[in-house]
Amino acid sequence: MACFEAALAHACAEAGLAPAEAAKTIADVSARAEFDAAALARAARTAGALTIPFVKRLTEQVAAVSPEAARYVHLGATSQDVIDTGLVLCLLPASARVLALSRRLGDAAAVLAKRHARTPMAARTLLQPAVPVTFGWKAAVWLSMIARSHARFAALAREACVLQFGGAGGTLSAYGDKGEAVAQALAAGLSLKRSPIPWHSARDGFARLGAEAAILAGAAAKIARDVSLLMQPEVAEVSEPSGEGRGGSSAMPHKRNPVASLAALEAAQRTPALAATLLGELAPEHERGLGQWQSQWLTLRELLASAAGALDAMGEALEGLVVDAKAMRANLERSGGLVYSESVSIALSAKLGKSAAHALTEKLSATAVRDGKRLKDVVRQAHPELDVDSLFDPERCLGDSQAMIERTLADWLSAREKAL
Amino acid sequence: MACFEAALAHACAEAGLAPAEAAKTIADVSARAEFDAAALARAARTAGALTIPFVKRLTEQVAAVSPEAARYVHLGATSQDVIDTGLVLCLLPASARVLALSRRLGDAAAVLAKRHARTPMAARTLLQPAVPVTFGWKAAVWLSMIARSHARFAALAREACVLQFGGAGGTLSAYGDKGEAVAQALAAGLSLKRSPIPWHSARDGFARLGAEAAILAGAAAKIARDVSLLMQPEVAEVSEPSGEGRGGSSAMPHKRNPVASLAALEAAQRTPALAATLLGELAPEHERGLGQWQSQWLTLRELLASAAGALDAMGEALEGLVVDAKAMRANLERSGGLVYSESVSIALSAKLGKSAAHALTEKLSATAVRDGKRLKDVVRQAHPELDVDSLFDPERCLGDSQAMIERTLADWLSAREKAL
Amino acid sequence: MACFEAALAHACAEAGLAPAEAAKTIADVSARAEFDAAALARAARTAGALTIPFVKRLTEQVAAVSPEAARYVHLGATSQDVIDTGLVLCLLPASARVLALSRRLGDAAAVLAKRHARTPMAARTLLQPAVPVTFGWKAAVWLSMIARSHARFAALAREACVLQFGGAGGTLSAYGDKGEAVAQALAAGLSLKRSPIPWHSARDGFARLGAEAAILAGAAAKIARDVSLLMQPEVAEVSEPSGEGRGGSSAMPHKRNPVASLAALEAAQRTPALAATLLGELAPEHERGLGQWQSQWLTLRELLASAAGALDAMGEALEGLVVDAKAMRANLERSGGLVYSESVSIALSAKLGKSAAHALTEKLSATAVRDGKRLKDVVRQAHPELDVDSLFDPERCLGDSQAMIERTLADWLSAREKAL
Amino acid sequence: MACFEAALAHACAEAGLAPAEAAKTIADVSARAEFDAAALARAARTAGALTIPFVKRLTEQVAAVSPEAARYVHLGATSQDVIDTGLVLCLLPASARVLALSRRLGDAAAVLAKRHARTPMAARTLLQPAVPVTFGWKAAVWLSMIARSHARFAALAREACVLQFGGAGGTLSAYGDKGEAVAQALAAGLSLKRSPIPWHSARDGFARLGAEAAILAGAAAKIARDVSLLMQPEVAEVSEPSGEGRGGSSAMPHKRNPVASLAALEAAQRTPALAATLLGELAPEHERGLGQWQSQWLTLRELLASAAGALDAMGEALEGLVVDAKAMRANLERSGGLVYSESVSIALSAKLGKSAAHALTEKLSATAVRDGKRLKDVVRQAHPELDVDSLFDPERCLGDSQAMIERTLADWLSAREKAL
Repeated sequence: MACFEAALAHACAEAGLAPAEAAKTIADVSARAEFDAAALARAARTAGALTIPFVKRLTEQVAAVSPEAARYVHLGATSQDVIDTGLVLCLLPASARVLALSRRLGDAAAVLAKRHARTPMAARTLLQPAVPVTFGWKAAVWLSMIARSHARFAALAREACVLQFGGAGGTLSAYGDKGEAVAQALAAGLSLKRSPIPWHSARDGFARLGAEAAILAGAAAKIARDVSLLMQPEVAEVSEPSGEGRGGSSAMPHKRNPVASLAALEAAQRTPALAATLLGELAPEHERGLGQWQSQWLTLRELLASAAGALDAMGEALEGLVVDAKAMRANLERSGGLVYSESVSIALSAKLGKSAAHALTEKLSATAVRDGKRLKDVVRQAHPELDVDSLFDPERCLGDSQAMIERTLADWLSAREKAL
Repeated sequence: MACFEAALAHACAEAGLAPAEAAKTIADVSARAEFDAAALARAARTAGALTIPFVKRLTEQVAAVSPEAARYVHLGATSQDVIDTGLVLCLLPASARVLALSRRLGDAAAVLAKRHARTPMAARTLLQPAVPVTFGWKAAVWLSMIARSHARFAALAREACVLQFGGAGGTLSAYGDKGEAVAQALAAGLSLKRSPIPWHSARDGFARLGAEAAILAGAAAKIARDVSLLMQPEVAEVSEPSGEGRGGSSAMPHKRNPVASLAALEAAQRTPALAATLLGELAPEHERGLGQWQSQWLTLRELLASAAGALDAMGEALEGLVVDAKAMRANLERSGGLVYSESVSIALSAKLGKSAAHALTEKLSATAVRDGKRLKDVVRQAHPELDVDSLFDPERCLGDSQAMIERTLADWLSAREKAL
Repeated sequence: MACFEAALAHACAEAGLAPAEAAKTIADVSARAEFDAAALARAARTAGALTIPFVKRLTEQVAAVSPEAARYVHLGATSQDVIDTGLVLCLLPASARVLALSRRLGDAAAVLAKRHARTPMAARTLLQPAVPVTFGWKAAVWLSMIARSHARFAALAREACVLQFGGAGGTLSAYGDKGEAVAQALAAGLSLKRSPIPWHSARDGFARLGAEAAILAGAAAKIARDVSLLMQPEVAEVSEPSGEGRGGSSAMPHKRNPVASLAALEAAQRTPALAATLLGELAPEHERGLGQWQSQWLTLRELLASAAGALDAMGEALEGLVVDAKAMRANLERSGGLVYSESVSIALSAKLGKSAAHALTEKLSATAVRDGKRLKDVVRQAHPELDVDSLFDPERCLGDSQAMIERTLADWLSAREKAL
Repeated sequence: MACFEAALAHACAEAGLAPAEAAKTIADVSARAEFDAAALARAARTAGALTIPFVKRLTEQVAAVSPEAARYVHLGATSQDVIDTGLVLCLLPASARVLALSRRLGDAAAVLAKRHARTPMAARTLLQPAVPVTFGWKAAVWLSMIARSHARFAALAREACVLQFGGAGGTLSAYGDKGEAVAQALAAGLSLKRSPIPWHSARDGFARLGAEAAILAGAAAKIARDVSLLMQPEVAEVSEPSGEGRGGSSAMPHKRNPVASLAALEAAQRTPALAATLLGELAPEHERGLGQWQSQWLTLRELLASAAGALDAMGEALEGLVVDAKAMRANLERSGGLVYSESVSIALSAKLGKSAAHALTEKLSATAVRDGKRLKDVVRQAHPELDVDSLFDPERCLGDSQAMIERTLADWLSAREKAL
C-alpha cells in the first residue's frame, strides 16, 4: 500500500499535478513509514476500509517532514485502488513461487515418466487391480495435469495482476484530462500492466486465478492420493523419501507416514471452497460492492499458500520417491494373474465374440479364485490353443503407453517454455 | 453413448480388428437402438456403471440383427470411455449455445456502451451515490467481464471436449499395436480432438470449463445486480423490457418485477458451489476413482444450463433495456449535488492540500444536508472564487471514461473474433 | 401446489371469506387438474414465478366448472406461499425416506458392532497399520455418526417443514382480521405445523436441513471409504455382498468392484457444495429476494436424493457385508507384528520412560524390517524379561473398546426412539 | 495443547500410571513452557503433525527440571488427541463469544420489533415496493432467524466441544484396564464432557457447529442486506449510527457508508464455503485420515471469527439504528399509493372475483402511472362506492403482524433462556 502511494505521488508529479519535491518526500516517507497494524485494523473496522486509517497515518508521517508534501498524499485515488493494487503487488511474487514449485513438481514427474516408462505395475480401477500398465505411464498421467495447468497459471497471474486505478467512481475523474497520463506513469512506476477499464467491480481475474490455483493444488492432491495408496504396507510399491524426523508417530514407533501426501491432501481439501468464495463474489453492487472485494486478499492468500504447500510437498516427495519395481511386479503376479483377464478375454473373443469371451473369462477367473489356482494355469488347461505365456506377459500389455508418455513429455516441455 | 459405440465399431474395422460388415451393422443398430432409461438406471445402480447395462442392451439389439456383428460391440473399450466421450459429445453443442448467448449479451452491452457513452448518471459505491459517471461507461465495465471470458470459454470448451479413450487401464492395451490407429479413426469418426494421454483420472479440463461457466454466469449476475438495483422505483433509472405476462405479481397488481435479473441471479447463485464440486474431484484414486467422474455429467449439465439461462435472460434484458437518461440526470441533482463533492474537494485542494480540502468539503456537505440546501449553493456562498457551475457540470467530470469505453469495445471485438 | 390451493379454498370458506360451495369446487378441480409442465415452465420464465401461470391454468379449469368458484382461487396468497409450501409437502415424504434409510444403516452397523465386538483387526492411521482394534469397535465409530445425526435430522425436518403463508408482504394483510383463522385452517387442512412468523425471507430452516442431509451422506461416505479400502484385494478384509450383475467391469472379467461404496462416495461428493448453496442464500433482499428461494426446491431435491442414495447403498452393503476375520488376523500378523509396537513401547516405558522407550522401539522395529524378521522375535531376543506372548496378543490390546461399543449402541437405541 | 498434557499427567497419576510428583512437575512446566512457534511449524511439516515436535520440546523442558518426570509426558496419548482437544479448548470461549454477540443482536432486534410494531413502511418484494407492513414486523422476521439459531448454536457447541481421547488407534489400548479411569480423570481435569466413543474419524460435530456458525453469520447478513438497502439515499428509511471516523470515504467527502452492514456481508460471504469444507471432511480414511482433521482448527477459526464479526457489527448497528418513520411513511405515499393496490384488488374482488379484480386493479394502476396521478384518486373516481380512505390507510393493512411479532418475541425469550 505504501508502494502504491509512493508511485502515485511520482505519477502525479510527472503529470504536473504535484511538485516533484513533494512526491519525493512522500516516496521517501512511504519507504520507511511505520504502522501499528492492530490499531489500523481497529480503525478500519469503524471506517469501513483499511485504506482510510492507513492514509491518515501516512499523511501524518509525511506532514511531520513536510506539511506541504502532505497535501499531495493519495491524490485523486480511492480506497479500493490502494487495496487492490497492494494485493496485486503481493500476488506477483506469490504466483512466481507457485509457478516455481509447479515447475519442480512437473520436472520430477517427468523424470519418473521417463525412468519408469517400462516398469510394469497394476493399474487399479475402483481400487481393484485391473490390467498391467507402467509406472512411467502413471507418472505421465500425473504430469499431464501439470502440463495443462502450468503455463495457464502463469498467464492468468499476468492477467489478474494488473494495476487497479480508477479513483472515486472508476473514471479517474479527479485528474481532469490528466487521468491517462497519471495512470500510465503509475503503472510504469509499479511495473504493472493496465486493464482497458478499471476492474473495481469486475473481479473475474481473481476468480480465474483462484480456480487455477485450486486446480494446481488438485493436481498435487491427485499425485498424493496415488502415492499414499501405493505406500500402504499391504501394497508397498512406492515410498516417500524418509529421513530424520520424517513421518513418525507420537504413539506408534514403527510408523512411516506419508507426510508429504498428507500435507498436499490437507491443502487441496480446502481449495475448492476458497475458489468458490471468489466465484461467488462476481456481482458486487454498482461501482463498489458490499463485502466482495474487501476480503479477497485473505481468500487469495489462503488459496495460493495452499497451492504452494501442496506443490512443494509433492515436489519433494517425487524427487525422492522410492520406487519398488520388484514389489510392483510381485503384486501383478500376486493376484494369481487376474489382472491379465482382459488379455485372455481379448484372445478368446477372436473366436467367441466380445460378450461370450467376457462371460467365459469371468467364469475362468471365478474358478481360479474358488480353487486357489493361478488364472494362467486355469486358462492353459482349459484353452491349450492359446499362447498363455504371451498373454500373461506385462511387456506385451503396454498398448500405446510409450507414445502417450512421449506426447505428454513434449507437452510439458512446451508448457514449461511458455510459462517463462 | 450409442454414437461412441458406432464410431468405435467403424474404427475397429478400419484398423482391421472387426469386419466392415459387422461395424456397419453395429452403427446401423446404434443409430436407431432404443433403451428403457429407467431400467438402465436401475441396472446401473447394481452394476456400478451405466455403461454395463447399456452395452448389454445394445449388444442384444445388435445380436437380434446379426449374432456375428454382436461379437464386436464395445470392443476393447471401457465404461468410462463411453460415459466421458458421451458427455463430451453433449457438451459441445451446449458450449456452443453458451457461447452464442455470451456473444449476444456482449453485443447488447457494447451497444449500450456506445449509445450512452455520454449519458451522465451517478456512480454508486457501497450503495451510496458517489460521483458522476456515464451509463455507457458502466455498460463498458459489464462488457469488460464478458470480453475477458468469452474467447476463453470457447478455448476451454475446445480443450475439455476431447476424446476419452483408453480402455481398461488407460493404455489401449486391448488393441495390441493397433491402439493408435483405432484412436485416430475413432476421433475422426466423432470429429473430436485427442489428448496426449487419456484423462480418465486427470479431470482438470472439466473443472476449468466449469469455473469459466460460473464466471460467465457471474458476469450476467453482475449486470443483473445493477439492473435490479437501478430498477428500484426509488431509483428508476432503467427498466427491463415489459410485455404481456412479464413480471407481474400474483398478489400485487401494480408490480413490475425485474424478472430477467431474477433469473440471472438465481442461476448464478448456484454456480460457484457446482464449480467447487468439480474442483473437488481432481484426485480420483489411481486409474479410475470412486465417485468423482461418475456424476460430472450431472454437475456440468447444471453448470452450463445455469450459465446459459443467466446469459439468455440478461441478453434479452439489455437488448430491450429502457434507459431513462432524464431520471439519471435528476438523481444526480436530487441529492443536492452531493455527488460533486469530489470535484469541490479537488478544486479546494489546489490551495489547501488534499487532507484539509477533504475535511472542509465534508463540513460543507454536512452543512448542506443539515440546512436542506444544495451543496452547489453552499459552496458558491462560502467560496465565491470557485467556478461553481463548472464544478457541478457532469460533462466535466467524465475523466478518462471515453477512452476506457473505446478500449473495452476494441477488446470485445477481438474476443468475439477469437471465439469464432 | 394444487393441494395448497385446495386447502386454501377450504380455509377461506371456513373463515367466511368464500362460499363453501366454491371451495369444494376448487378442491375437486385441484385434485384432478392437469398441467402442461413444459408450457408452465416457459411461462414461468417470463412471469418470474411458476405460481403465476400455474394459478392462471388452475383458475381456467375451475372456471370451466364454475365461473363463480373461480373467483376464489388463490385468494389472498402470494406466489412464494404456494412454492414454499408445495416444497414442504414434497420434503416430508422425502425426509421420511431418508430417515428410514438412516435407521436401516444404523441398525446394520449396530449388528456388526455387536457381532464383531471381539474380532481383532488392525487400526489404520494415515493409511498405515497402527495397533490392533476390533472390527466391532470400528463399526461402532461408524454408528456413532449416525446416532448423532439420525434423531436430529428428524427434528430438523419437522422444524423446516412448516406452512409458509404470509400473502403479498408476509403479514396476511389480505384477510383483514381473519388472517389467523385462515392460517390455522390452512395448516390443519395440510396437516402442517406453523411458524411464529412467515419465513419468506428467513430461510435458515432449509439451510439447516440441507447441512444435516450432507452430514448423513457424509456418514455413509465414511463407511464407504473404509469398506472400499478394506475391499482392496491387497487388504481383502471385507467385501460388499456379491450377486448377479453386481460390480462387474465392462472391460475386465475378473473385477468385483465396490459398487455400493462407489455410489455412496459419488453422492456424498456433491453434498457439501449443495449445502453451501443453501447456506449462501440466507440474505434475500427485503421481503422477497432475487434468486435465493426460487431454486431451493432444486437444491434440496438433489441433497435429499443424494443422502438417500448414499444411505441406501451402504445399508445394503452393511447388511450383506462379508467379513473375513481370518484375513484380519492374518494382516495383523503379516506385518511381522509391527502393529504391536505400541504395546512393546509401553512395556518398555515402565523402566525407561516414554521417550527412551519410544526411541528404542523405533530401533527394534527398524531392525525387524531391515532383517526381515518378526518384531516379536526381535523383542524376545533383545528383552527376554518381557512377557512377549502377551504383548503380541490382540485380545490384550482392546483397551476400553468394549465399553465404547456398548455406550454407542445405547446412544443409537435412544436416537432411534427419539426419531420415531 | 500444554493444558492437555498437564491434565493427562495428572489423570495418569490418579489412575496409578505415573507418580504424583512427576505429574505435578509436568503440569508446572506445561503452565510456563515456551515454544518457538515458527520452529514448531517447520518441524511439523516434516513430522506430519504439530504434536510431534511440540511433545519433543515439552519433554525437553520437563527433562531439564526432572528427567524422571519427563518419562511420563504424553503417556499413552496420540497426536490427534492433543490437537483436537486443544482445538476444543479454544472453541469453548470462542463459542461463548459468538453466543454473547448473538444474544446482543437478538436483543437489539427485539427492541426494534417492539418499538416499531406499528411504524408503517413498505414491504419490498423483488426490490419493488409491495404492500404496507411495519418496521417492527420486519425486525421480528430478522429476530426469528436468531431465535431459531441461538439456543441451537449453544447446544451444538456443547456437543462438539467434548474431549478427544483415544490413543494410538482410538481404544485407549495403552492404558490396559485403566483407560476408562484415565479418560474420566482427564475429562474432569479439563472440565470437558466425553463422547461415548472417540471421534477421531467421526467429525460430524465440527461440521454441524460450522454450519450453524454460517447460519448465524447469514442471519446477520440478512439484516445487513436490508439495512444497507434501506440506507440508500434514494430510500433513506434507516441509517447506521454515525460517529467520528465512521463510514467516510477516502475520495468522497459527502459519503456516509453502511460500514457495519459491509462488515457483516463481507464475513457472511465467506462462511458457506468454509462450512462446506467441514462438510467435505466427513470421510477420513480408517482411524486417522489424510488431510481432513489436520486443518479444521484453521477453518473453524475463520468460521467463528466471521460469525462473531458479523454479529458484532450488526449488534452495534441495530442498537444505534436511526429509524426515520417519516421517510417510511413518505415512501409509502411517494409511489402514488401503488402499494395499496392489493387492498383495492381485494375490495374489488368481493364483487368481481379474484382474477377480474386483479386485472382491473392492474389497469387502474397503469392508468395512475401513465397519467401521473395518485392511485387513490384514480380509484376514487372510478369506484366511488369504495371506502377509499380506509383502503389507503396503512394502519388498516397490518393483517396479522402484531400477533406475529408477539409470538416471535416469546420465541426469542425462550431461546435466550435455553442458551444460558
